[in-house]
Amino acid sequence: MSKILVQKFGGTSVGDPERIKRVAARIKSYYEKGYQLVVVVSAMGHTTDELVDLAGKIAKNPPKREMDMLLSTGEQISIALLAMALHDIEIPALSFTGGQVNIVTDGNFSNARIESIDTKRLIAELDKKQVCIVAGFQGIDENQNITTLGRGGSDTTAVALAAALKAKECEIYTDVDGVYTTDPNKVEGARKLNQISYDEMLELASLGAGVLHSRAVEFAKKYGVVIHVKSSFNHNEGTKVVSENEIMEKITVTGVTLKSDDARMTVADIPDKPGIAAEIFGALADKKINIDVIVQSSSRPAGSTGKDRHNTIAFTLPIAAIGEAKSVIETLTKKWGAGSISTDENIAIVSAVGIGMKSHTGVAASMFKALADNNINIEMISTSEIKISCVIAKDRGKDALRLVHAVFGLDKTA
Amino acid sequence: MSKILVQKFGGTSVGDPERIKRVAARIKSYYEKGYQLVVVVSAMGHTTDELVDLAGKIAKNPPKREMDMLLSTGEQISIALLAMALHDIEIPALSFTGGQVNIVTDGNFSNARIESIDTKRLIAELDKKQVCIVAGFQGIDENQNITTLGRGGSDTTAVALAAALKAKECEIYTDVDGVYTTDPNKVEGARKLNQISYDEMLELASLGAGVLHSRAVEFAKKYGVVIHVKSSFNHNEGTKVVSENEIMEKITVTGVTLKSDDARMTVADIPDKPGIAAEIFGALADKKINIDVIVQSSSRPAGSTGKDRHNTIAFTLPIAAIGEAKSVIETLTKKWGAGSISTDENIAIVSAVGIGMKSHTGVAASMFKALADNNINIEMISTSEIKISCVIAKDRGKDALRLVHAVFGLDKTA
Repeated sequence: MSKILVQKFGGTSVGDPERIKRVAARIKSYYEKGYQLVVVVSAMGHTTDELVDLAGKIAKNPPKREMDMLLSTGEQISIALLAMALHDIEIPALSFTGGQVNIVTDGNFSNARIESIDTKRLIAELDKKQVCIVAGFQGIDENQNITTLGRGGSDTTAVALAAALKAKECEIYTDVDGVYTTDPNKVEGARKLNQISYDEMLELASLGAGVLHSRAVEFAKKYGVVIHVKSSFNHNEGTKVVSENEIMEKITVTGVTLKSDDARMTVADIPDKPGIAAEIFGALADKKINIDVIVQSSSRPAGSTGKDRHNTIAFTLPIAAIGEAKSVIETLTKKWGAGSISTDENIAIVSAVGIGMKSHTGVAASMFKALADNNINIEMISTSEIKISCVIAKDRGKDALRLVHAVFGLDKTA
Repeated sequence: MSKILVQKFGGTSVGDPERIKRVAARIKSYYEKGYQLVVVVSAMGHTTDELVDLAGKIAKNPPKREMDMLLSTGEQISIALLAMALHDIEIPALSFTGGQVNIVTDGNFSNARIESIDTKRLIAELDKKQVCIVAGFQGIDENQNITTLGRGGSDTTAVALAAALKAKECEIYTDVDGVYTTDPNKVEGARKLNQISYDEMLELASLGAGVLHSRAVEFAKKYGVVIHVKSSFNHNEGTKVVSENEIMEKITVTGVTLKSDDARMTVADIPDKPGIAAEIFGALADKKINIDVIVQSSSRPAGSTGKDRHNTIAFTLPIAAIGEAKSVIETLTKKWGAGSISTDENIAIVSAVGIGMKSHTGVAASMFKALADNNINIEMISTSEIKISCVIAKDRGKDALRLVHAVFGLDKTA
C-alpha cells in the first residue's frame, strides 16, 4: 500500500501564523508515522479577497490572465510560510508552486482544468524524506502562463495530486468533522457519516451542503481517489468519500438537504412545440444560471382546438439570478410573441440523497407521506436515480428537513 | 538603432494604485512613440518588509529558499497590477515572472547571480506589440527553484534584460532627477550630471551616494548597456551612465561624497610579519563587513631592537559592525598573544571621484590644501586611480563636503 498521503488545508486552517504552526505540528505527527507527505494549501484567510480589492482599484475589468498572475501569489505565500514552520520544528520541507510541479492546465484563465501532472520532482523529493508543500488552486498552461482553477480549486489540486501519485488517500481538512446526514446547525439529530459514495457527495455538493467542491469529487470518482474529509481542529476520524462498490451497507438515504435561497420562475402560455425548453435552458446556461428543479406541463384552454395547446415551464433558480434570468427569457417571449413570466421567492427545496434508492422502492412515497402527514404541500417534484427533491413553502423548510431526516432513520437517536 | 527600451520602476514608483496608474500613463506615452517596451518593476512600497515580518512570526531562521519563494510574490503582485493598469488605458500588456522569461541564476538563494536570459518569449511578445512587464529581483535556478538577487536586484534585472535584448538603453526611474555632483540635501550648489562613467558611478555607489546598485552598474559596464537614471515624478532628462570612451570632456572630479556612519578601528602593537593584514581583512570579509579606508604603519619602540618592530593597522568600517569586528579581531589577537583594539566613532569620510584624475595631476594636493586652509585635519588618506578619500573629524564633515565640492568647481554657481 502506498505510503504517500496527500493532505489539503484550506484558507481558514492557515489563516494566521499561529494556525500555520498548528498545521505544521499536525504534519509532523504524520511524518513521524512514516508517511510520505504532499501537502496542498490555499491562500491565507482573506488574502484572495484583498488581492481582488486591490485589482478593483486599478482596473474596472482586469484581464483574467493578470488576475491569475495576481491571485496565485496568495497560495505562494502560504506554501513558503508552511515550509518555514516545518523547518522551525525540524521537519525537512520544500514548497512548490503549481508550475514548479508541472500541474499543466488548459488555457482557460480563472477557471482552468488540470490536464496533466508530472510527478518526477515530487517523487524525487519524497524519496529524500522531504515534505512537499504544493500551492493549491493554480497551474500553468502549455505556454508557462499561470492559471487558476476557480472555486474549490485547492481541493481539485489535492485530488489530482493524489491520483497522479497513486496516494493512499487524499485528506481534506475543513472546519467541520466530516460530512453529515444533514446540516447540524438546522437539525439537532444530524449524524456524521463514516462513508459516502462519490455520486451521493456530488448530489450533496451541488445542493450547497458541500464541504467539497463538485469538480474535486468528479476528479476523485474518475481516478478512484479516496477523499477523507476531516476537521483541522481535532484528530477524529472524518468521512471517507469512496466508490459505490466499497460501501458495504447501502443505506437507502444518506443525506437530506434544504435549500432556501432559490426562487421559482414560471413561464406560462408559451407555444407547445419542440425545442422551446431547450431554447429557455440553453439561454439560461449561457448566463451560467444554476437551475435545479424543472417541471413542464401543457394544457388546452377550454373550448380551444388542438393547435392551441399551451405550455407552462416552471423551474427553480437562485434568487440572486432572477433579474438576469427574466431579461434572458423576455427576449425569448418577445421573439415567440407569446408567454408570461412570474416568480415566487417563497419556496424552499428539500432533497433526500442515497445510492440505496436504486434498489429500494417506496423511498419517494415515504418522503411524500411524511410531508403530507404534516400538512406540508409539495409544489414541485424532481427525481433522479439517487435523489428526490420537493419544492415546498419556504416557512415550512426546516420542519420538512427535520421530518425527512427522521423518516429515513438518520437521527442519532434513531 | 534598436527600438527596444527597458524601463525600471522601483517600489516607491509603484507604491499604491494611483502611482501604478501614473506609471502606466508614462509607459503609454513611450508606447505611442513606437518603442518596444520591457518594463521591470519592484515590489510595492513596504510589501517586502511586511513579508519579512510575516516570516519572522513563523520561524526564527527561515531557510533562504523559502524566503525567496515568499519575497518573490511581492514583485509578482506589482507586475500583475501594472499590466491591469495598462489594459485599463488600452495598452496591450503581459506580465512575466522571472521564471517565465527564463532569467536563470545560480542557486545562491537570497543573493543569486544571473547566468542567462532566454529572450525568445519576450521578443515574440514585443513583436506582437505587447508591453512586457517583468518582475524584478527574481529568477530561477536550473532546478526551477525561485531565487532572488539580493539588494538592488531589480536594477540588475533591468540591466541584464537590456543587455540580453540589445536595448537602446535601460531607464532606471527613481525619486531623484539623476546623479548629482554631491548630495543636494547637504550642499546647496549640487548639480545634476548629464553623463557619468561606469567606474565613477561604481565609486559613488559604493560610497553610499548610490541611486544605482553596484552590481547593476558592473553588469552594465560588462555588457556596455547605457543606464539612464531619471525621475518618475517629471519628464526631465536624467543622468546617463556610459562607458568612459563616450565621455567627451573628462572632468577632473565628477562627484564628492560624505560618509558619516563609519567608525575607525585601530589594531595596535601587533607583530610585524607577513600575512597579518591578510588575516585581519580576510576574517572581516568572511563576516561581510565593509571596509573602506585602510592605513598601515609600523614603528620601532625607542630602544628596542629590529626584532621588536610593531605594526598598527587602522581602517574604517560601519559603526553598526563594530561589535562583530571586535570579536573577530579579538580571536586573532589572542592567537597572536599581542595587539590592542581601539575604536573612534567620531569620524567622517569625504571622497572625491573622477576619471579625469587619471590624466590630471595635483588633484589630491588641491583637496588637501582646501581642507588644511580651513583647519580641517586629515587623519587618514586613501587613494585609487579615480578616487581620493580623507578621514576627518565628524563635526567637520559637512564643511569638508562643501569645500571640496567648491574647490573642484562643481557648484552650480561656479
